[in-house]
Amino acid sequence: MNTADFHTHPDRYVHWKLEVDGPVARMVMDVQEDRPWRPGYVLKLNSYDLGVDIELADALQRIRFEHPEVKVLVFTSGNDRVFSSGANIFMLQSSTHAFKVNFCKYTNETRLGLEELSCASGIRSLAALNGTASGGGYELAISCDEIHLIEDGNSAVSLPEVPLLGVLPGTGGLTRLVDKRKIRRDLADVFSTLAEGQRGPRAVKWNLVDASWPKSKFEEKVGARVAEIAEGGTARGEAGTGIVFGPLDPTTEGSTRTYEYVTLELDEAARVATVTVNAPNTPQPTNPDELRAAGDAAWVIRAWRELDDALLQLRIMNVEIGVVVLKTRGDADAIVAADRLLVDHADDWLVNETRLHVARVLRRLDNTSKSLFAVIDEGSCFAGTFFEIAIAADRSFMLNEPDVPVHLRIGPLSGGALPMSHGLTRLQCRFLADPSMVSRALETTEPIDAETADELGLVTYAPDEIDWEDEVRIAIEERASLSPDA
Amino acid sequence: MNTADFHTHPDRYVHWKLEVDGPVARMVMDVQEDRPWRPGYVLKLNSYDLGVDIELADALQRIRFEHPEVKVLVFTSGNDRVFSSGANIFMLQSSTHAFKVNFCKYTNETRLGLEELSCASGIRSLAALNGTASGGGYELAISCDEIHLIEDGNSAVSLPEVPLLGVLPGTGGLTRLVDKRKIRRDLADVFSTLAEGQRGPRAVKWNLVDASWPKSKFEEKVGARVAEIAEGGTARGEAGTGIVFGPLDPTTEGSTRTYEYVTLELDEAARVATVTVNAPNTPQPTNPDELRAAGDAAWVIRAWRELDDALLQLRIMNVEIGVVVLKTRGDADAIVAADRLLVDHADDWLVNETRLHVARVLRRLDNTSKSLFAVIDEGSCFAGTFFEIAIAADRSFMLNEPDVPVHLRIGPLSGGALPMSHGLTRLQCRFLADPSMVSRALETTEPIDAETADELGLVTYAPDEIDWEDEVRIAIEERASLSPDA
Repeated sequence: MNTADFHTHPDRYVHWKLEVDGPVARMVMDVQEDRPWRPGYVLKLNSYDLGVDIELADALQRIRFEHPEVKVLVFTSGNDRVFSSGANIFMLQSSTHAFKVNFCKYTNETRLGLEELSCASGIRSLAALNGTASGGGYELAISCDEIHLIEDGNSAVSLPEVPLLGVLPGTGGLTRLVDKRKIRRDLADVFSTLAEGQRGPRAVKWNLVDASWPKSKFEEKVGARVAEIAEGGTARGEAGTGIVFGPLDPTTEGSTRTYEYVTLELDEAARVATVTVNAPNTPQPTNPDELRAAGDAAWVIRAWRELDDALLQLRIMNVEIGVVVLKTRGDADAIVAADRLLVDHADDWLVNETRLHVARVLRRLDNTSKSLFAVIDEGSCFAGTFFEIAIAADRSFMLNEPDVPVHLRIGPLSGGALPMSHGLTRLQCRFLADPSMVSRALETTEPIDAETADELGLVTYAPDEIDWEDEVRIAIEERASLSPDA
Repeated sequence: MNTADFHTHPDRYVHWKLEVDGPVARMVMDVQEDRPWRPGYVLKLNSYDLGVDIELADALQRIRFEHPEVKVLVFTSGNDRVFSSGANIFMLQSSTHAFKVNFCKYTNETRLGLEELSCASGIRSLAALNGTASGGGYELAISCDEIHLIEDGNSAVSLPEVPLLGVLPGTGGLTRLVDKRKIRRDLADVFSTLAEGQRGPRAVKWNLVDASWPKSKFEEKVGARVAEIAEGGTARGEAGTGIVFGPLDPTTEGSTRTYEYVTLELDEAARVATVTVNAPNTPQPTNPDELRAAGDAAWVIRAWRELDDALLQLRIMNVEIGVVVLKTRGDADAIVAADRLLVDHADDWLVNETRLHVARVLRRLDNTSKSLFAVIDEGSCFAGTFFEIAIAADRSFMLNEPDVPVHLRIGPLSGGALPMSHGLTRLQCRFLADPSMVSRALETTEPIDAETADELGLVTYAPDEIDWEDEVRIAIEERASLSPDA
């Protein structure tokens, strides 16, 4: 199995520096030209590739979990001519279509995470553009709450993809231009076809940036604004009360990657992967102090980090896999018990970050462009947060055999704590035709057998033991035979 | 200039029969295999191509304007084995990407028109599937208000594009499945990967169709339902009080196509087209009776039909044209006066249909995938309904020269009578960042000079006479030089 390492640590960052100083965190981008994620291109002018973005994603996680004292995150460049020139063109040109799609998806998920940092964790972000931000560089800036641009007669913001490359900006630039910053559409048309972009006051007038400052005053003015933000609001918590994410250290042997709670098995010839997620098998934290003490070893942190890693392996390193079979194993009651932490202590910042993390991993699952089949078979435990895995799947198969332990159970977190990208819950999205089915499902808090699940519309198929094996096998084979493009 | 004929008449339909019997209109699809729109493929199994859809679009227009007595429109097949097998695969395989996109867009606009027939004109539509409806055949059915399927052991509804062809349904099938009929997503996943589709009661259970009837009862049951709909509600008007659309008869010479009120000029080498729309130069109807008397010669009917035809020529026959320059000529006051008919007599059915038609042509303009530049120069009259043309453009240029007559003027129809596809007005869409700008614009009912237009945010550029020619010319050249894919 080809794997990639999505885990890193600030001590090992190659392209960024993360500096935390009380309520202010700074991310300084200084991309090392000769350290691309894979050989074959040079990362000139603070252009980025997957490796650069893995560090950025890691930094955002650490700010969330390790640094509750942070109130504002500032992005700036360590290169004195350019903030960032965006995704590296030579990397894109030498990549497959599937890789490019998954690369752009990952970078956009990271930028959505930056926006969530603001709206869900109260950490404001500010892009201090001390040089030109073009393409993906501007897309990073436009993901921040505020953009400040230097006036040095040269620095601009731009989306030069259309005029220079004949492609559209791939990481949400056009969308954020008109839907987030609500730039007038004719001005957005001009801007996104202007290779040289816009500078200074005109960029402010068009709302492409929030402020522009003469070079001589840039640091002072940005510093004042950052201090102002840092003085306002309240931090989530005290410095030192967070938890540190260590490496996951899975083992990979042949076609199997084994984490503590997750197993990823590939059948490359069949184009099928099986992801099995396990319930906790030890007592889990029941309050914020116990969560803090358990740290990244807590099941609710670790299992979801592992699932996230497995999904990224599938997306980035295993583009030919067409079907992902989702399984669960273990004690359903243990999940329901562990979930109580997220329900009962939602006002604790660390518990809240933990819930937000579970929700992000579930959205990563929703937005994985492979066919997802949940198989609810003997020994499974699709309960509580794991119920969301079943319902995130494109289809689900539940064994209908009264004597066999097959667990499906809805918990309170399915009522709104784990929203999809568009803001609806998975149950709401499932029952758009009849919202009363959502209430019926949420009121069903006891374990659900296959016939009830079928009647409640929670599973696609509920075959009995005689049909089970053939039905699941044929469905997987048929789906895997479809073109991955479709 | 290559041109195509988008005008036809029921007497000349090759593939459909339109039968109007009091409140019931029937469209019987019986595609002639050997009469494709262009040579090279055979239209087997009631499959369709552009020629089939041009007849359908024509029929919908005639039901709207000629047959106010109609309350229900029934689609059925003249072929006893199949309702429709959708867009012809051989036609698609032998078409360019650009043609396919524009073909699918045209067919979807026709189906949206069918839905508008129901929601805006009160004419209910019913698909009487007396045979299998697959692919685009089901997409046509799903555009109707109701779908009735025959149970003959064979007939099904299906979207076999993914399993059989490895492509997605191209005319809104997936969208209408989940957003219109709100099919549960896992069932939609199964359905759209099931080559053979669903039949009878299961198709009803999944809400893919509204009813299924045994073959022996199909005609009787559908007939009863049609009669029931026809007895309910009220018709828009009396039979014989509509107007008949005759041919437009433009002349085409070299690179210029001249209609009565519209001129289309191509500069193929430069990839630029100029569309000039003229104001009325004769007295226009001021009440519904005068509109009836004027018929299809009325400017408000004819000018917009001509613009619609010009847009279709550009989309279908001139895919290499990248920039469309939109101009107007004539007396702005004459447009404002003619518009009064639509404002003052909105409750008359024929006036209402006329307004809906103007709105559809404007949406056709909005959704034309070429760069649209409005040039508001000497002699122009972007007033009232023509103001919407200026604001539909991607950019606008307004000559800022006090002594030169340059007319821009907002009329009451810009307040909501001519919505875009998503339901917003063009002014609302322009000023998402500051809705107060919409009210300011609508309150400005007098003629607007270039400086005021600039201040109100209504134009992109307002150069004076010295810069005018260069600025417009360079913008057009720059845009035309971009890749048509971008």
